[in-house]
Amino acid sequence: MSTVRVAALSGGVGGAKLALGLQCALAPGELMVIANTGDDFTHLGLHISPDIDTLLYTLSGRANPDAGWGRAAETWSFMEALQELGGAGWFRLGDKDLAVHVLRTDRLRNGASLADVTRELARRFEVPSKVLPMSNHSVRTKVRTDAGWLEFQEYFVHQQCRPAVRELVYAGACSARPSPELIEALRGTDLDAVVICPSNPYLSIEPILAVNGMRAALGLASAPIIAVSPIVGSRALKGPTAKIMSDLGLEANATSVARHYRGSIDGLIVDETDRHETAAIESLGVRVSVANTVMTTRESRIALARHLVRFAEELRARKHDGLNHGNRMEVPSVGAAAG
Amino acid sequence: MSTVRVAALSGGVGGAKLALGLQCALAPGELMVIANTGDDFTHLGLHISPDIDTLLYTLSGRANPDAGWGRAAETWSFMEALQELGGAGWFRLGDKDLAVHVLRTDRLRNGASLADVTRELARRFEVPSKVLPMSNHSVRTKVRTDAGWLEFQEYFVHQQCRPAVRELVYAGACSARPSPELIEALRGTDLDAVVICPSNPYLSIEPILAVNGMRAALGLASAPIIAVSPIVGSRALKGPTAKIMSDLGLEANATSVARHYRGSIDGLIVDETDRHETAAIESLGVRVSVANTVMTTRESRIALARHLVRFAEELRARKHDGLNHGNRMEVPSVGAAAG
Repeated sequence: MSTVRVAALSGGVGGAKLALGLQCALAPGELMVIANTGDDFTHLGLHISPDIDTLLYTLSGRANPDAGWGRAAETWSFMEALQELGGAGWFRLGDKDLAVHVLRTDRLRNGASLADVTRELARRFEVPSKVLPMSNHSVRTKVRTDAGWLEFQEYFVHQQCRPAVRELVYAGACSARPSPELIEALRGTDLDAVVICPSNPYLSIEPILAVNGMRAALGLASAPIIAVSPIVGSRALKGPTAKIMSDLGLEANATSVARHYRGSIDGLIVDETDRHETAAIESLGVRVSVANTVMTTRESRIALARHLVRFAEELRARKHDGLNHGNRMEVPSVGAAAG
Repeated sequence: MSTVRVAALSGGVGGAKLALGLQCALAPGELMVIANTGDDFTHLGLHISPDIDTLLYTLSGRANPDAGWGRAAETWSFMEALQELGGAGWFRLGDKDLAVHVLRTDRLRNGASLADVTRELARRFEVPSKVLPMSNHSVRTKVRTDAGWLEFQEYFVHQQCRPAVRELVYAGACSARPSPELIEALRGTDLDAVVICPSNPYLSIEPILAVNGMRAALGLASAPIIAVSPIVGSRALKGPTAKIMSDLGLEANATSVARHYRGSIDGLIVDETDRHETAAIESLGVRVSVANTVMTTRESRIALARHLVRFAEELRARKHDGLNHGNRMEVPSVGAAAG
């Protein structure tokens, strides 16, 4: 079993792209991905973990290359039969995808933890990385819109993010705890970097950070924490990030992302398009590195992953210098920020 | 809503053939089918009711015409994905079939009765007959073999009926009650016949009769009770009936079937092949009618159904005479037998 060198916090498709790049850039076992489970929900009695599944499918080469979710070469007989019987059709469950939901639900009902089940699925899918839920406890993202509070999937899938977001809560986060394996990995002395993937900061990353004890655990990591901006030139790489920022009265740019993560991160990777924001972001105490963050090909994902690892080295060196010369204000240490 | 004219007790494929014949021979709503649920089991957390499903698929024209179970034009992506994940492969769940199991399980978990769910499924499938579980309570058939007690599906599907049967129990039958709609139908004055389909007497019909109060309820029906022998020329029409009779030390013939049902039935329809057993069977107090019981075509199913309805008329006339002339010994009334 290799030692974890990079721990990456990720949501679904946007984050999974970078996770795959990191997996390719590292040796087997060196990447640990911590998946958001704030999107999890029970549908037709089945426990569905959309982000874990997107990660497992992506990291095992089983993801649908066209859609942002689901499996390659999927079939849809179940959905057809379900709709003939009047079952809900708004959440599409592919026949192969269903095998994961049925097995997971059965294992959870028999007392397995979500981490156990995720580990088993990853092993069966021969995923070379460690994939972990952020917590074994239930955390459910809820969205307040002008039409009232909505369950996450109701907002995200059924209403396709149309209602304007006014407020978000991560129900259960206060009584949830980080997965024990994550705590252990963050304490590891071989850890080179903690990565916040370019997932939606509000819907995918914030639920992870909201888990009781998560910020403290990240604060104890000696490795630098680096986010990749999901906003490129005021647009989201994927999904509704820009729309939500606008709903919340924020400018959709990398500086807003930096402001959001400030105190939790050491560095931010911004796209070349957003190079001009560097000074504004660094004035917030966040180091900036510029890269091509638009991962349209496998090569571009690996290139970004390698860039990230180099940036982490640079931050480690700086941090070391900083500690020696007493200039922690310039790059705030995570331990201090997490308090 | 038509009044029920025929109530048929049925297991899976063998019984479903006659049920379909009866449905074709009667007007919509005139047939009520009472399904064995002793085969029901929980698999991967899903509530599976094999006999109800075979009946629903058969009566709605959705049954696989080749196999003795499952749906026509079924696909198998779920099973493939499940087995890749190490899930149990011995019970085959088709993608379309799965829609029924998932919906049923979800409805039951939300408090619906098995009768409610079955009614909803039948309505969605546009089944013109009423299909009812024998009971809303759990009854589980267990088989004692030389290798010990086996759950029904373990014996039937996983071990393919290979172990010799020594004993059968219908766990839960004592505390189960017949479906209320069945009680009501049996009391109906328009009921022409109660039919025991040519299903396996031990595995499919006995669990129904074992439900606490079922024999008493049948005893209160004024309509004659007619069984169709599942044995034709010492072989079973379908499935392991002959083997089980042999395991239990019984001769596999229509007379053994008559002896088994004696006291619960007024008449038995035997195949032309078994005409020579007529006298032996009638000496047991069971009226015999001879017909072609091998239902290879839709026409032969309807023909047997019509034969059955005529035989019921004949028995009603006889019973009426009998009551007038005091010869109930010749055709024992069910009420007396049910005590």
